[in-house]
Amino acid sequence: MYKLYYMPGACSLAIHALLNELKQDVQIIDRSKAQDFERLESRGMIPVLVDNGQVIREGAAIILYLLEKHKNQMLPEGGLEKTRFIEWLMFANATLHPAYGRLFFIGKTLPDGPAKEQALNAASLIISSLWESVDKQLQQSAFVCGSRLTVVDMMLAVYASWGEYFPVDIIISDRVRAVIAAARAHPAYVKAVNDELEASK
Amino acid sequence: MYKLYYMPGACSLAIHALLNELKQDVQIIDRSKAQDFERLESRGMIPVLVDNGQVIREGAAIILYLLEKHKNQMLPEGGLEKTRFIEWLMFANATLHPAYGRLFFIGKTLPDGPAKEQALNAASLIISSLWESVDKQLQQSAFVCGSRLTVVDMMLAVYASWGEYFPVDIIISDRVRAVIAAARAHPAYVKAVNDELEASK
Repeated sequence: MYKLYYMPGACSLAIHALLNELKQDVQIIDRSKAQDFERLESRGMIPVLVDNGQVIREGAAIILYLLEKHKNQMLPEGGLEKTRFIEWLMFANATLHPAYGRLFFIGKTLPDGPAKEQALNAASLIISSLWESVDKQLQQSAFVCGSRLTVVDMMLAVYASWGEYFPVDIIISDRVRAVIAAARAHPAYVKAVNDELEASK
Repeated sequence: MYKLYYMPGACSLAIHALLNELKQDVQIIDRSKAQDFERLESRGMIPVLVDNGQVIREGAAIILYLLEKHKNQMLPEGGLEKTRFIEWLMFANATLHPAYGRLFFIGKTLPDGPAKEQALNAASLIISSLWESVDKQLQQSAFVCGSRLTVVDMMLAVYASWGEYFPVDIIISDRVRAVIAAARAHPAYVKAVNDELEASK
């Protein structure tokens, strides 16, 4: 059984949903309640996956590890198709995720006032432009990585909720919203949300 | 021959060095001088690799693509070793790179003053803590991904130079500095730096 260290609503949710989708048993552990967490991951960052004693960090690395290990239809076997999948996985994890990360950083770092407002607005403009490139991709395929829902759509669904914590306008097109809604309605995702809510009570 | 769109000193430099290391011919194109760049990559982001007409974006995706395609000793064939390599690639690309990205964002967004100073200092503290975890890794192995220099060390060498653009103190241990120096002295890296300087004249 896997162990997944998470925070409710954080990016670990997409990995949790993926484990459900791959029909893998997982024990989820709320980072804030885990006394040994700092020893496991000195930077305090989630997600952390423990597989048979092996500690694996970094969201996209965990996802590639699970997709290589468990048979599924998400990760193409090779060639340009695989590269396209990894490209969007990286877009999500290394470009869109940190763009939202700026909002949390600003929120925590700057005192309320015009400088904070200016920074939040500038960060939101970048995020909106990134959602625009997701929209462009969805003009060509039903989901971000082709005709099937993948973990990348589930990642986007998690990130999209983060804008709600801040007084900002982030523009997400109806086409993108439809995919996010589909990801959020996906049984593996719904189960992950409910199990995290239950475990963090 | 590959085409690589770059900016001098940007993260594209690590990919350029990797292409040299893999002994691949590459035509480098300074983004600021490429009239067709916006059409190629609407977000204006580099690096962009063009391989036989195929456009590949996102640094880590490009790196995995090149390492899978060209025989080399950097990417382990499979198992936990491969996962560890990808973990550090992601640490570099999705955690350390965006942590530096915050400095550029703050520098561009906020007017000079105490709020800006506070934000730059908070961003630097995070960066220093990330370098600390690199130091911890280097207590176990000569280079970040084992006994050989890899593209991950070269990525770190590129990022480390970015702190110099800002009035901040970023703490990088001597152990980490030694690896960065080794990466910067590596022939494939030296050639990339020189070729970019020449091409951007």
